Amino acid sequence: MVQAKVAAMKKLINDPQDVVAEALLGIEAARPEVRVDHANRIIYRRDAPRTGKVGLVSGGGSGHEPLHGGYVGLGMLDAACAGEIFTSPTPDQMLEATKGVDSGAGVLHIVKNYTGDVMNFEMAAELAAADTGITVESVVINDDVAVQDSLYTAGRRGVGVTVLLEKLVGAAAEKGRSLPELVTLARAVNESGRSMGMALTSCTVPAAGKPTFELAEDEMELGIGIHGEPGRRRVPLRSAREIAEQLMEPILADLEFTSGPVIVMVNGMGGTPLIELYLMYSEVAKIMEKAGVTAARNLVGNYITSLEMAGCSVTVLRASEEWIELWDAPVNTAGLRWGI
Amino acid sequence: MVQAKVAAMKKLINDPQDVVAEALLGIEAARPEVRVDHANRIIYRRDAPRTGKVGLVSGGGSGHEPLHGGYVGLGMLDAACAGEIFTSPTPDQMLEATKGVDSGAGVLHIVKNYTGDVMNFEMAAELAAADTGITVESVVINDDVAVQDSLYTAGRRGVGVTVLLEKLVGAAAEKGRSLPELVTLARAVNESGRSMGMALTSCTVPAAGKPTFELAEDEMELGIGIHGEPGRRRVPLRSAREIAEQLMEPILADLEFTSGPVIVMVNGMGGTPLIELYLMYSEVAKIMEKAGVTAARNLVGNYITSLEMAGCSVTVLRASEEWIELWDAPVNTAGLRWGI
Repeated sequence: MVQAKVAAMKKLINDPQDVVAEALLGIEAARPEVRVDHANRIIYRRDAPRTGKVGLVSGGGSGHEPLHGGYVGLGMLDAACAGEIFTSPTPDQMLEATKGVDSGAGVLHIVKNYTGDVMNFEMAAELAAADTGITVESVVINDDVAVQDSLYTAGRRGVGVTVLLEKLVGAAAEKGRSLPELVTLARAVNESGRSMGMALTSCTVPAAGKPTFELAEDEMELGIGIHGEPGRRRVPLRSAREIAEQLMEPILADLEFTSGPVIVMVNGMGGTPLIELYLMYSEVAKIMEKAGVTAARNLVGNYITSLEMAGCSVTVLRASEEWIELWDAPVNTAGLRWGI
Repeated sequence: MVQAKVAAMKKLINDPQDVVAEALLGIEAARPEVRVDHANRIIYRRDAPRTGKVGLVSGGGSGHEPLHGGYVGLGMLDAACAGEIFTSPTPDQMLEATKGVDSGAGVLHIVKNYTGDVMNFEMAAELAAADTGITVESVVINDDVAVQDSLYTAGRRGVGVTVLLEKLVGAAAEKGRSLPELVTLARAVNESGRSMGMALTSCTVPAAGKPTFELAEDEMELGIGIHGEPGRRRVPLRSAREIAEQLMEPILADLEFTSGPVIVMVNGMGGTPLIELYLMYSEVAKIMEKAGVTAARNLVGNYITSLEMAGCSVTVLRASEEWIELWDAPVNTAGLRWGI
């Protein structure tokens, strides 16, 4: 038997340096709708580029699965660039993905607002303009109401709305909408959604080998970022009911959600069991009802995670009837699948 | 603000006694395809009973979500009975569910081999025969190769095959197959699948308030049950590659899997992130390729869990072309959804 290097931490991995590369092998083996460029660490929709369709490219640090690679496929992304854990992919990866999905209709970069991601996607867009003549547009997502400026980010961070945006804009791209139309839609979706998260425990980046931060047994972190970066405040552990209130209050105060239906997501950070997420959804639903907010659609589960962190986030997105139709449109990815 | 009782453990809950009842409220609020009988803790397919269709009833202790409530809906179960965490539902619940899904075509009980579940489902079937005239048949699932007899179980435990069986038999029931045909199919599926699991960490039952067992920082438990009950042996922590070998070797030794396609599931125990499960799938796929086993379909994710336990299980099921067709048939549940 080959002697593998065993990490001094409790993870299903081989060498900490190989986690991303080996997970990409697994995604390629498991998912028929994608192909993987291992040299560039890009997950492509198997049939990309699609003639006449705008190419949708996202990407970011790994460790947030199913985001982004698990959202590649019919009705969502054409390509996702995987960085190291919690580390932006490089401009070269993004440029390569841009070239790989362009069919002449242009490419939209979907970027979470983290300084590294934003800078590298900007550079990739400049390289694409200089070298290839591909028309590239970008949308930067900044839905996290927890903090203004933080570790890794100027302005608000991009979190849960990313999942909903990739679904809605993916459906619109599938219907043949033009790049300018998709840019308008993407910016409108970003402006219509708000999120906030919290952590019960830290996570451990494999290459670091120790928890990103420490939380006492009776503490939790409110407003946590998806890389374990600090949130609003560290507070005593509270009940699910109070946690739901403390997440929903800043979301509902930041945007008016009563004028039409919303899509709501109760998202697990990776280490929280589904029974607790459903319990949280019950609390969130009660708060929404009291506030006159109507959930037309919802997601409850692990959709944008922070490795094995225990905790959750809530995202609320104001959605028109047209957006609900985009939501219901067929999707075939590892993370979201229906209608196919 | 209401002062809720806060558990001395890191969970998104209110009172430990209310976890199951409150999670059922969340499932009801989130999922349009089900309705919930809260008094009896039964999740029903919204349109049950379906005229002419055999009713499929499962159930068991809570804490394994999405199993079983997350598999209620078109193409899978008609009803699931939720017990307390890791505790069998009562015969009364099962009898009520049986009555609730019968349309005259009979009812199949899908039972995992744990002493409490088996005994209570037997009693429910006897009560149904005595009181109602409903024809009830049962299948008991015992796919876990790890141990013969264990805490809570005489014989092998019922684990991962349950998920695949509920999908395949659910699809066949949807097509209008008779109760005797479904019994034959269910037993054949059970006999064609094998599973084994492992844990990196324990889980904590809310009402107990402390971990079910203790594992040292450099230890793991091979052959763990889904309630944290002991497995084959406690061994030093190993690499994902070696863990995959130690799970697959007993599975492949127990049944011949090379004569046709298989359906394979790499299942997370609740607290393991998806990036690790994909990495595990890569190792499992390599072992299968070497052994001449061909995966026609797969699942990678959290499908039968043990609260927030970190770890995984592997299930391999020999599947005919007809079973692959049943697998691909439409399903609309919280846990599995496609074709709809």
